[in-house]
Amino acid sequence: MSARLSSATDYAALLDKYDTWMFDCDGVLWHGDRLIEGAVDVLSLLRRQKKKVLFVTNNATKSRKSYKGKFDQLGVEAHVDEIYGSAYAAAVYISSVIKLPKDKKVYVIGMKGLEEELRDEGVSFLGGTDPADCTVAPFDLADFTPDPAVAAVVCGLDTAINYTKLSKAFQYLTLPNAAGRCHFLATNEDSTYPAGAGLLPGAGAISAPLRYALGRDPVSIGKPARTMLDCIKAKVDYDPARTIMVGDRLNTDILFGQAGGLATLLVLTGITTEADITGPNASNIVPDFVTSSIADLHLGVAGK
Amino acid sequence: MSARLSSATDYAALLDKYDTWMFDCDGVLWHGDRLIEGAVDVLSLLRRQKKKVLFVTNNATKSRKSYKGKFDQLGVEAHVDEIYGSAYAAAVYISSVIKLPKDKKVYVIGMKGLEEELRDEGVSFLGGTDPADCTVAPFDLADFTPDPAVAAVVCGLDTAINYTKLSKAFQYLTLPNAAGRCHFLATNEDSTYPAGAGLLPGAGAISAPLRYALGRDPVSIGKPARTMLDCIKAKVDYDPARTIMVGDRLNTDILFGQAGGLATLLVLTGITTEADITGPNASNIVPDFVTSSIADLHLGVAGK
Repeated sequence: MSARLSSATDYAALLDKYDTWMFDCDGVLWHGDRLIEGAVDVLSLLRRQKKKVLFVTNNATKSRKSYKGKFDQLGVEAHVDEIYGSAYAAAVYISSVIKLPKDKKVYVIGMKGLEEELRDEGVSFLGGTDPADCTVAPFDLADFTPDPAVAAVVCGLDTAINYTKLSKAFQYLTLPNAAGRCHFLATNEDSTYPAGAGLLPGAGAISAPLRYALGRDPVSIGKPARTMLDCIKAKVDYDPARTIMVGDRLNTDILFGQAGGLATLLVLTGITTEADITGPNASNIVPDFVTSSIADLHLGVAGK
Repeated sequence: MSARLSSATDYAALLDKYDTWMFDCDGVLWHGDRLIEGAVDVLSLLRRQKKKVLFVTNNATKSRKSYKGKFDQLGVEAHVDEIYGSAYAAAVYISSVIKLPKDKKVYVIGMKGLEEELRDEGVSFLGGTDPADCTVAPFDLADFTPDPAVAAVVCGLDTAINYTKLSKAFQYLTLPNAAGRCHFLATNEDSTYPAGAGLLPGAGAISAPLRYALGRDPVSIGKPARTMLDCIKAKVDYDPARTIMVGDRLNTDILFGQAGGLATLLVLTGITTEADITGPNASNIVPDFVTSSIADLHLGVAGK
């Protein structure tokens, strides 16, 4: 059972116990372009207490650099090396885990941020934002000449998704390939994402047509997959026993923290509602701690 | 175990035994725009023998009328009332089974043929081929005013699929709706379809993003679902014991025939290969009869 935090003493104990604080962003720090009240104060408080603050997001439409722009715009202090996005982690996975040879390429279903991170990691790619592939014109297989250098397909949220991209990706993933089977990666598998007034289909919905047509699942990089944490581990020195993951989604954030041996704190400012964690249909993913909003943490200062 | 047909006597017995012959088209009668050798002769033979001939296709991109154009172009005799497509069956399902009130509308992910069949059944719709929805421009939820008359989403193969259509369909399927939950239909769930030189993602891949984002499956109309046969049954008088379904796909055609209590004949001119029906990885869907091509049937005349 989760511990419900409510008193100043509860929050003070939490602040004492954890040195590294990993935050999901949307639904925890902000909703779209609207800050969650008190979030900035709590991040400042953590920094004053010399806590290590990291931002761990499945948003693969932005590179870390452009995601930092979002923090700046909302007035939230953040540094590029504190930001871990699934686009960055996917690029690192391709360059450092798969070790894709330099003469090979990735076919991209995704947006500018994913392309930026691939470019920064020295990974060649095609597709993505190329206007030739961002079209609803009919796709004719007879006119398609596959690039023999393509050895991986990476799929993230792509709001310019269309049949040409899906067909090309499907061809790369099924064509006989001298270099062995084409890698199939997804930045993340979120079913939806919060888009201001409501939810829209997420990155997992964008790769779903390929999964269905292929009967094969991609390697998923973002939360809850361990790959994202491996990526953080390679860059940041942290003690899992003194690290807490704060998020609004049970099946991404909380599962991610648990899989990595971290403590987990669920906030109720995002996707997860009270009914998802209590009552007869409660999820079997149980966070260590629950609080209504990240803003509650500043009660911990009064509790000192 | 399936009976392998090979001798003139085998084919003559089959011709004697069945009065109604239901045919899948692509992979059985033709490949894309290329007729399978001997198919026309066999269909003529069946007609000379006073057999009832029906064409049962999951292709939802064409209405029956335009599908008849395809038969004409290839020189295959067919009449509109012999053609049963999943677009037609979906339209009939909406008008006659759901009995969608006349003031309600369907949001369409699909192509011209699906729209034609809906129009013929008197079903109002939006989306589909509307240029406003056939775009890769960004979709902004704030600019979207849902039509309160939408009470169903129908999803077929749509080679102009894009994020605007997926987002609108997702909104209709999740919005609180005074008329009760919005119906979610798929013309069919084929994972791929044969497109000349190879396979491309099929109608099932087009509805996959919605299934994934919603965590909910559509009512599927086409083969192997019973809905298609119910639609045929409403129009054609046939004796299941003397009816045979001929197809190239185990998980659509053969399953469809079996579910409807029909005999089944698998041809190996399409998707299914010898390895799919024999050996260690053979499918557990076992047709009654197997032959290499529909053309083999005219051996049955010699066998008489």
